[in-house]
Amino acid sequence: MRHDGRRVNQLRKIDIVKDFVIHPEGSVLITFGETKVICNASIEDRVPHFMRGEGKGWITAEYSMLPRATNQRTVRESSKGKISGRTMEIQRLIGRALRAVVDLKELGERTIWIDCDVIQADGGTRTASITGAFIAMTLALGKLVNGGKLKVLPITDYLAAVSVGVDKEHGEILDLNYIEDSSAQVDMNVIMTSQGNLVELQGTGEESTFTRQQLNSMLDLAEQGIQSLVEHQKEALGDLSLIVSENMKKQVGTK
Amino acid sequence: MRHDGRRVNQLRKIDIVKDFVIHPEGSVLITFGETKVICNASIEDRVPHFMRGEGKGWITAEYSMLPRATNQRTVRESSKGKISGRTMEIQRLIGRALRAVVDLKELGERTIWIDCDVIQADGGTRTASITGAFIAMTLALGKLVNGGKLKVLPITDYLAAVSVGVDKEHGEILDLNYIEDSSAQVDMNVIMTSQGNLVELQGTGEESTFTRQQLNSMLDLAEQGIQSLVEHQKEALGDLSLIVSENMKKQVGTK
Amino acid sequence: MRHDGRRVNQLRKIDIVKDFVIHPEGSVLITFGETKVICNASIEDRVPHFMRGEGKGWITAEYSMLPRATNQRTVRESSKGKISGRTMEIQRLIGRALRAVVDLKELGERTIWIDCDVIQADGGTRTASITGAFIAMTLALGKLVNGGKLKVLPITDYLAAVSVGVDKEHGEILDLNYIEDSSAQVDMNVIMTSQGNLVELQGTGEESTFTRQQLNSMLDLAEQGIQSLVEHQKEALGDLSLIVSENMKKQVGTK
Amino acid sequence: MRHDGRRVNQLRKIDIVKDFVIHPEGSVLITFGETKVICNASIEDRVPHFMRGEGKGWITAEYSMLPRATNQRTVRESSKGKISGRTMEIQRLIGRALRAVVDLKELGERTIWIDCDVIQADGGTRTASITGAFIAMTLALGKLVNGGKLKVLPITDYLAAVSVGVDKEHGEILDLNYIEDSSAQVDMNVIMTSQGNLVELQGTGEESTFTRQQLNSMLDLAEQGIQSLVEHQKEALGDLSLIVSENMKKQVGTK
Amino acid sequence: MRHDGRRVNQLRKIDIVKDFVIHPEGSVLITFGETKVICNASIEDRVPHFMRGEGKGWITAEYSMLPRATNQRTVRESSKGKISGRTMEIQRLIGRALRAVVDLKELGERTIWIDCDVIQADGGTRTASITGAFIAMTLALGKLVNGGKLKVLPITDYLAAVSVGVDKEHGEILDLNYIEDSSAQVDMNVIMTSQGNLVELQGTGEESTFTRQQLNSMLDLAEQGIQSLVEHQKEALGDLSLIVSENMKKQVGTK
Amino acid sequence: MRHDGRRVNQLRKIDIVKDFVIHPEGSVLITFGETKVICNASIEDRVPHFMRGEGKGWITAEYSMLPRATNQRTVRESSKGKISGRTMEIQRLIGRALRAVVDLKELGERTIWIDCDVIQADGGTRTASITGAFIAMTLALGKLVNGGKLKVLPITDYLAAVSVGVDKEHGEILDLNYIEDSSAQVDMNVIMTSQGNLVELQGTGEESTFTRQQLNSMLDLAEQGIQSLVEHQKEALGDLSLIVSENMKKQVGTK
Repeated sequence: MRHDGRRVNQLRKIDIVKDFVIHPEGSVLITFGETKVICNASIEDRVPHFMRGEGKGWITAEYSMLPRATNQRTVRESSKGKISGRTMEIQRLIGRALRAVVDLKELGERTIWIDCDVIQADGGTRTASITGAFIAMTLALGKLVNGGKLKVLPITDYLAAVSVGVDKEHGEILDLNYIEDSSAQVDMNVIMTSQGNLVELQGTGEESTFTRQQLNSMLDLAEQGIQSLVEHQKEALGDLSLIVSENMKKQVGTK
Repeated sequence: MRHDGRRVNQLRKIDIVKDFVIHPEGSVLITFGETKVICNASIEDRVPHFMRGEGKGWITAEYSMLPRATNQRTVRESSKGKISGRTMEIQRLIGRALRAVVDLKELGERTIWIDCDVIQADGGTRTASITGAFIAMTLALGKLVNGGKLKVLPITDYLAAVSVGVDKEHGEILDLNYIEDSSAQVDMNVIMTSQGNLVELQGTGEESTFTRQQLNSMLDLAEQGIQSLVEHQKEALGDLSLIVSENMKKQVGTK
Repeated sequence: MRHDGRRVNQLRKIDIVKDFVIHPEGSVLITFGETKVICNASIEDRVPHFMRGEGKGWITAEYSMLPRATNQRTVRESSKGKISGRTMEIQRLIGRALRAVVDLKELGERTIWIDCDVIQADGGTRTASITGAFIAMTLALGKLVNGGKLKVLPITDYLAAVSVGVDKEHGEILDLNYIEDSSAQVDMNVIMTSQGNLVELQGTGEESTFTRQQLNSMLDLAEQGIQSLVEHQKEALGDLSLIVSENMKKQVGTK
Repeated sequence: MRHDGRRVNQLRKIDIVKDFVIHPEGSVLITFGETKVICNASIEDRVPHFMRGEGKGWITAEYSMLPRATNQRTVRESSKGKISGRTMEIQRLIGRALRAVVDLKELGERTIWIDCDVIQADGGTRTASITGAFIAMTLALGKLVNGGKLKVLPITDYLAAVSVGVDKEHGEILDLNYIEDSSAQVDMNVIMTSQGNLVELQGTGEESTFTRQQLNSMLDLAEQGIQSLVEHQKEALGDLSLIVSENMKKQVGTK
Repeated sequence: MRHDGRRVNQLRKIDIVKDFVIHPEGSVLITFGETKVICNASIEDRVPHFMRGEGKGWITAEYSMLPRATNQRTVRESSKGKISGRTMEIQRLIGRALRAVVDLKELGERTIWIDCDVIQADGGTRTASITGAFIAMTLALGKLVNGGKLKVLPITDYLAAVSVGVDKEHGEILDLNYIEDSSAQVDMNVIMTSQGNLVELQGTGEESTFTRQQLNSMLDLAEQGIQSLVEHQKEALGDLSLIVSENMKKQVGTK
Repeated sequence: MRHDGRRVNQLRKIDIVKDFVIHPEGSVLITFGETKVICNASIEDRVPHFMRGEGKGWITAEYSMLPRATNQRTVRESSKGKISGRTMEIQRLIGRALRAVVDLKELGERTIWIDCDVIQADGGTRTASITGAFIAMTLALGKLVNGGKLKVLPITDYLAAVSVGVDKEHGEILDLNYIEDSSAQVDMNVIMTSQGNLVELQGTGEESTFTRQQLNSMLDLAEQGIQSLVEHQKEALGDLSLIVSENMKKQVGTK
């Protein structure tokens, strides 16, 4: 039993509130335990300068934390006048991950802007962000389909993310909260599709190392977590999830 | 009747959720109609460099909007690398206003950081921010008193803010939402104490002017609105409101 | 009698030097006591990007102080690499105020750049800036009329600004210098037309409050000060003042 | 056979020039095929502010490319005034990786600055940087030991990095050059010790995904590459490599 | 005869107004023809961090132009958020030049801040700045001597600056105005002491070259100009000039 | 004999490696003693915005030092977020100097980007940069001629740069290394053509002065040094040097 009573392979309580903010095309408040992130998706009818005329769309993400999302107040990046390396890494990761399950040609020359704003942090903000951003993005694209601007929903699979790690006491564990994350020997973020394909894998031993055996145990835990998160996503998406599932079946034939 | 069915002297629906975020010393989600602001107050046990050794406290505020708080996505100030003039004006205003009802000597060499983050905007974000920040700050100071770090609650009066304006169709109106604000001939923000004293007055005729008679009508409306907002504040503060009211009585004798 | 021998309703010595710098289309050195500001107006034959094609003009202002305009040397904003909140507030205020007395459609797709550079400061730099900027702008527009580029002078009224405040010893006072400003309980800047219409009102009680009665007394003082400043403006403008006065008469019929 | 004649499991030609620049405590020019990186290590006798008094050392890295290291000239980050997300990711990665094989307590309150400057780029600049930085760092620490400032060389194992990927034509391949990297479906950077322990794993499917089977094949290739790179490191370090090897033996007993 | 009626070896009209601004320790408005620069000197009772404890003083300079000092409005460097290369060159030059005639040990651990603000530009702004800054600095140091804070005036010689150039029509000419500067084949700034010693020489052939013979002719002109400027400086300094002259005599014995 | 055994009029050992980096159109590693600079020239087929349509080319330069090019590690300008005054001066100087020997009309609407990156510094980095940049630029332009994009090589003369100075012990000396530069009373950089024409002259007495006699002695030394550097350039350029020499002969007739 971990310090908060969870088993090593147990996710924290997951909660998803759809349409949390009224203005964005897609909006979700996602909760992983005490970690809460507002994920908003906006559609812009053009692509960045360097992609014009290619007939393809683009997905870009921004990530931020409120100063008191954390226990100690952090200085705003707007006050510092620059974005930290950590923030840049996370927002590049979110965009790259989502692009793996969107058919950018079907999207057409549009940009999807993903905004992940952490209002309360307790570890796993990047995995909650990706998991929530997938829903916000799908909701926004669903509106394009309903509005007749897109013929098909250009989503090829579900996408979710979860953290795994190696803990001194419990060995490999799933979905680390802040306390676990601070003391873990190894920290790994796994982004996967519902079919178990890896989209991104980032494992780090801060002042430590890990074996391939530990890697495999962590991946096993991650697969379980991802399956569970995808179930939550399906529930939140409702009817839209039927379209995603159909898209997946079609691909089996073509890929 | 205004476009949303309100009378000229009617506030929008006000809602206040206490302890919205778990980490800050004081936290409130305040709602004026469709405008929603997270107001967090943090206490730091030191003052800025230029005030050290004076035995007085300081209050400073930061204000920000999520990119999709608005109908059109706005670029993050952290991405632009600098804070806009509008943001600076608002955060200076919030800090200055709160300092008018705090006894900074009683506060001692501490800084209160106020963070107002607009998650959804529909006009009046600065007045909602000030009204909510007062509550968050009082909650945070109440914890200091309860924890024995402060002998008295250094709040001298309630403080709330509301907008008033001159509308082409309806004349002077109270608590403008975004549509009203966009077409108003005059826009004025009034910050007052519960005793009807003015703390700050900012009236602007953008490409227009206004008479002293119009000014007086707007101030009459503002006084009504402030009284109503203070009632909401008292309710949210619960027992702490008794201490504020006692503080006010004591001052009558001394001032 | 105030510390410098003035009555409570008395302006400091006002002095206006036309054509102080040779290059700008309109240039004035304005003096309020020991406060000296160079106000230059430049005309650019296009408007900012966001206004193109609307057939309207724009007025924008920049404000700065020489490092030794003040008693203690201040760091240049160019060295700090960013503009302070105070500077932004003032330059937004100057631009907004001037736009209230210019017919932007008559101006056509032109931008008027106002530069207010304080070479010596002793309180009231923003009110001196606005009062001087009105003259510099009118001189510049007068040249456009004389050069046949504009059919009519697009100025609808005189515009001047003055500070008022509440002093512990003397109560409400007009046109505060630096010493008075530093110790005032309330500080208010009033921008008015020659017809007594308010353009902007910014009253602040720093760590203090003020009553509506005090507000009214301050506005009475401000009206007197504005009338006197407008007389100085008329004298400086010479023949151009006849055109402004005619413009005002015409409006009476149309407005 | 790949387009440059290599087998799928073959590294490019590796070349290491010691003491390439005279001023740094440790300096190496490392070459992976046409990729050339100057790796310099500097020792500073203090740690960053946030670590003072802990009795531990710190390792930090900076990475940059000359504008014409690439085929198209890139704009300098000093000209842009900010560091790109890519650069930040790489320099954080280099520092984190090196910290995994240094005993920071043995290092004492010192900072090792690693500078990796790419003078010619053809893919794999980050893996060449890490592999070369390990040597430069060990050379610099060797000087501390020789100079009597350190009792033991605080290096616990060899550390090298290599890229692996999935190619449409050849499947899993080792040490991708620029052309291979541009068209790869999956790109993964593996950082390992000589004992086969993972320090960092970053696998990315840009607009694609990968299976756990592919992951394992890539890791097998990486292990071979790392072994070969460590041999090059040993040769470059000469006598110092004996000390590192001894350190490794001692750990077997203690860990 | 040049286009403005001057001979090739003739300075423009020089005018010096002492104590132009009231706050600085030393203040001068210097005029070279239509070029006008406010030169202010401030004394700070400490030196920059890197010089503390050496018992020596420091002199640093800042230079700026009002946006409409020029015929076309220039963008403020505070708006651009960075200082141009041209401004940096000029302010480094002013500081370096002044340091050549100040005994920094006699000055003690103080910083002299020189601010040169061009309010109207017509060529030669850097030479006017240096010539005026010398006077402002000497006035400020004179106050320190009079106030008993310094025993001796730490000025070792007069210092002035003038431009010379090669003109297509008139050959070598002295003190170029803007029109001459724009079309000159060679532009050279010469900074000299009253004794004819060179402090700084910067000659540039923009898209052109010059011979050593032309260099010598230009230096002859410059020497004449410097002598004349020093006479203006002596007149402006009044009694202080006697002390400078005495300082120069003493050095003859010691150097 | 100087501290490194050289005579006062002797250059350090000069070495030039052509095609040091493979990507740029022209690339050189130039060595002056222990000073080593990579000079790369890139050709872009357009000119900056402000020059379009004039039918002329442009040359611009950037200069940087690796952090450990120096004995003490220097902070990267990309980390500081701004370019120092020293760097700006040097890169403006390099560009200006090269433009003096290029026929910009013959170049056509192209930009030559010069990148000088100091990998090891021991005094004279700017003179080595200019001398090497001339070669890199000529190599790049030679490729344009060979590729048929240019009819003639638009180089009008050789261009080299060298430092001279006044040393307390040895008087006037040529090509100062770091130790000599640090203690020199006067430091002067001379940029000349092979025909002995001056392109740029920058002499500085930091906290000191110099006479015209000293200036002439320094220029005599510089001329010798330039002649020798041009011989090295000719050797490096090989056949291209024949074309430059022919260009010079043609000019004699036309100029």
